[in-house]
Amino acid sequence: MAIITLLTDFGTADGYVGEMKGVLLTENPDATLVDITHDLPPHDVEMGRLTVARYWRRFPSGTVHVAVVDPGVGSRRAALAVAADGRFLVGPDNGVLSPALLTPGCRAVALAVPTHASATFHGRDVFAPAAAKLAGGVDVEALGSPARDPMIRRTPEPHRQPSGDVRGQVIAIDRFGNAITNLIGEYGAQVVVNARDVTLRRTYADLEPGNAGAVIGSNGLIEIVVRDGRAADVLSLERGTPVVLRSR
Amino acid sequence: MAIITLLTDFGTADGYVGEMKGVLLTENPDATLVDITHDLPPHDVEMGRLTVARYWRRFPSGTVHVAVVDPGVGSRRAALAVAADGRFLVGPDNGVLSPALLTPGCRAVALAVPTHASATFHGRDVFAPAAAKLAGGVDVEALGSPARDPMIRRTPEPHRQPSGDVRGQVIAIDRFGNAITNLIGEYGAQVVVNARDVTLRRTYADLEPGNAGAVIGSNGLIEIVVRDGRAADVLSLERGTPVVLRSR
Amino acid sequence: MAIITLLTDFGTADGYVGEMKGVLLTENPDATLVDITHDLPPHDVEMGRLTVARYWRRFPSGTVHVAVVDPGVGSRRAALAVAADGRFLVGPDNGVLSPALLTPGCRAVALAVPTHASATFHGRDVFAPAAAKLAGGVDVEALGSPARDPMIRRTPEPHRQPSGDVRGQVIAIDRFGNAITNLIGEYGAQVVVNARDVTLRRTYADLEPGNAGAVIGSNGLIEIVVRDGRAADVLSLERGTPVVLRSR
Repeated sequence: MAIITLLTDFGTADGYVGEMKGVLLTENPDATLVDITHDLPPHDVEMGRLTVARYWRRFPSGTVHVAVVDPGVGSRRAALAVAADGRFLVGPDNGVLSPALLTPGCRAVALAVPTHASATFHGRDVFAPAAAKLAGGVDVEALGSPARDPMIRRTPEPHRQPSGDVRGQVIAIDRFGNAITNLIGEYGAQVVVNARDVTLRRTYADLEPGNAGAVIGSNGLIEIVVRDGRAADVLSLERGTPVVLRSR
Repeated sequence: MAIITLLTDFGTADGYVGEMKGVLLTENPDATLVDITHDLPPHDVEMGRLTVARYWRRFPSGTVHVAVVDPGVGSRRAALAVAADGRFLVGPDNGVLSPALLTPGCRAVALAVPTHASATFHGRDVFAPAAAKLAGGVDVEALGSPARDPMIRRTPEPHRQPSGDVRGQVIAIDRFGNAITNLIGEYGAQVVVNARDVTLRRTYADLEPGNAGAVIGSNGLIEIVVRDGRAADVLSLERGTPVVLRSR
Repeated sequence: MAIITLLTDFGTADGYVGEMKGVLLTENPDATLVDITHDLPPHDVEMGRLTVARYWRRFPSGTVHVAVVDPGVGSRRAALAVAADGRFLVGPDNGVLSPALLTPGCRAVALAVPTHASATFHGRDVFAPAAAKLAGGVDVEALGSPARDPMIRRTPEPHRQPSGDVRGQVIAIDRFGNAITNLIGEYGAQVVVNARDVTLRRTYADLEPGNAGAVIGSNGLIEIVVRDGRAADVLSLERGTPVVLRSR
C-alpha cells in the first residue's frame, strides 16, 4: 500500500489541498495520505527545504513525498520528480527538493506538464498526478526527460575564524521560538549570540526557567533556547542572526 | 475501502474533530479519513460552500464528505444527507452542501436525529454516525425522510452593463491574499477594481514582482493578484468589493 | 489494522510531526495515522489533558494514542505507556494522560529510553517507537517497568456554598470563544459569571443573536456562550474565572 506525504504552503481552508487529495485518491484509492504540513509561511521555499530535510528519509522505502511551495508556478521553472535513497519526491525546481537532489545516486526528471494543466495550480494538475503515478509503481524516468541542472539550495556553511571561533548563523525559528543554527558543537561549549554568552546544555531542563542557553537539537545542530520561553523573542533572533561558537 | 472526508470550522485543539474521528472509526475501522480543513473561519458557511465546491467531485465515486459549519446547531434547521454524482455528503441544511444539491439527479434526506444526541454537537452525534453508515453501504434514503426545500446558496451572478462591461464582485480571499471573483474572461482582458486597471495574464510569473494583475484561477474564475504580494492588502479588497470586466 | 492517533503542541510547519509519522510508518506501514491536533498552545499540558479526555475513549479498542505536550523533555520526568479500557496511550509523565490513569484497572509503565534518543525530542525517539510497538501487538508491560506514582491532573471540583449555590470556574475557552466550566446543571438554571446572570438553555439557537447564555456542552459540562459571538471576549472570561450556579 503506497504512502504519499503532502507538504504545502496552501493552508487548508481554501480547499486547494482537498483538491490535491481528491486527485491522488481518484488515481490511487488505496494510498495512505500523510499530511506533513500545509502551514508553511506562503512562498517560503527555504523553510520548505529545511522541513523536507527533516522527514523525507524517515519514511519507508517507496514513500512518495509531494512538496509544493511554488511561487514560480506557471513560469519556466521545471516541475521535478526525483528518486533518491528508495523514496520519491515531486515538487517545483526551486530548491525545495534539495535534500534529495544532494543524495548520491539520485535521479531527477523534468515532468511533462499536461496540456490541460492550469497555469496557477500545478499542485493539483502536475504534482499530484505525477505522485499518483509514482505511488502506482510507474518509473520516475517514464514521467519526463532528465532534469538539467536542477536548482540546489544549501544551508550556509559556518566559517572558522583565525581565533579558532566558528562563526555561523540562525537558519530557522521553530514554533517554540527556538533558534536553530548551522553550528555543530559539544556539551559545555560557549556560544555567543547578540552579545550574550550562553552554554551548550544537554536539554532545556538543565536551564533555570526563563534562562537562555543552547542545546543540540534533534537534527544535530545547535539551537539557542530559553527555558519555558521563546528565545527568538527574548534574544531578538531571526534567520540570519550571527552566532559564534567559541574555541575551547 | 470507504473514503470519508472532513470539513469543519472547529479547529483541532479542542478535540471536537478528534471525537468525530473516533465515532467514524469505531463504526467503520477500515475507513480512510481525509482531512480537508478544520480552519474555516468560525460560522463561515459561505466559505465552507465555496470550499466544498472545489473538492467534492474530485474524490472517487462512493466517497462520503462530512461538511459541518453549523451555527444553527440544535435549532430547527434540518440535518441533511445528500447523494449526488456518485458521492455522498452530510451536513447542516444551511447552504454548505449547495454544490451537491444543485447537481441534477441528487437525492437529499433530512436525517433522523438520535434521541441521545447533544443539542450542541451534531458533528459528533448526527453527522459522523450518518457518514459512517453511508460509508458502510447504507442507502441515503434509509437515513431519513426526503428533505423538503433544502437551503441553496449560490455565488452571486455578474451583470452585463449597457456599455458591455460586466460588473461582478470579489467572492473570496484566499491564503495568499488573492481575490477570487465571480467573473469569467480571456487573457488580455482589462479588469477594474478599486479604480485600478489591471490586465488578465496567464499566470503570476507574467507580472513584475510587486505588480498587480489578474489571472484565471484554477477553478476558472478571474482572480486579482499581486506578484509576490497580497492583493487583498495592497488593493484593499474584501468579499463584495465590486470588480468590472471591461468590454473589448 | 492498527489505529494510532497523534496529539502534540508542535505545529506542523517545522517537520517534527512529519518525523514522528515517518518513524511510526517505518515500523508499522499498515497503521492508520489519525491527527487529533498539533495546534495546542505550546507547553499547555492542561489543555492537552482536557482534549485527551474528550476523544481517547471514542476510538475503537486497540487504538494507540500518542499525546506529547512535553515541556520537561530530557528532564527526569518519566515517559509513560498506559493501557486503559482496551486502549493504549503514550506520553510524558506530566498529567497529560490523566484521563487514562484515572481509569479503574489501568496499567502504566515507565518507558525505557533508548540510548540513542535525543534529549530534546522524545516524540520521535521515545514515544513514536513505543506507540509503533504497541500498535504491532507488543504488551505494554514489555516496554518498561511499572510506573511509580504517575502524575495526575484533575479538573478542579466545584464547591457547594452554605446558600446552596455551587461555585465553580471556567476550565477552558474553545475556538468559538465558548467558556467551558466545571459545573453540571439542568435547563432553566441560573448561572452568574462576572456579575452577569444568564440562564441555562438547551442550545445556542435558543438565544437571540448577540445575547449571552449558558448551555450544557457536549461533554456534559455547563458552557457560557454568546449566540453568534465569542463569550470569552464579550464577558471577559478566561481559565479560572469564577462561575456560580444558583440554587433553585
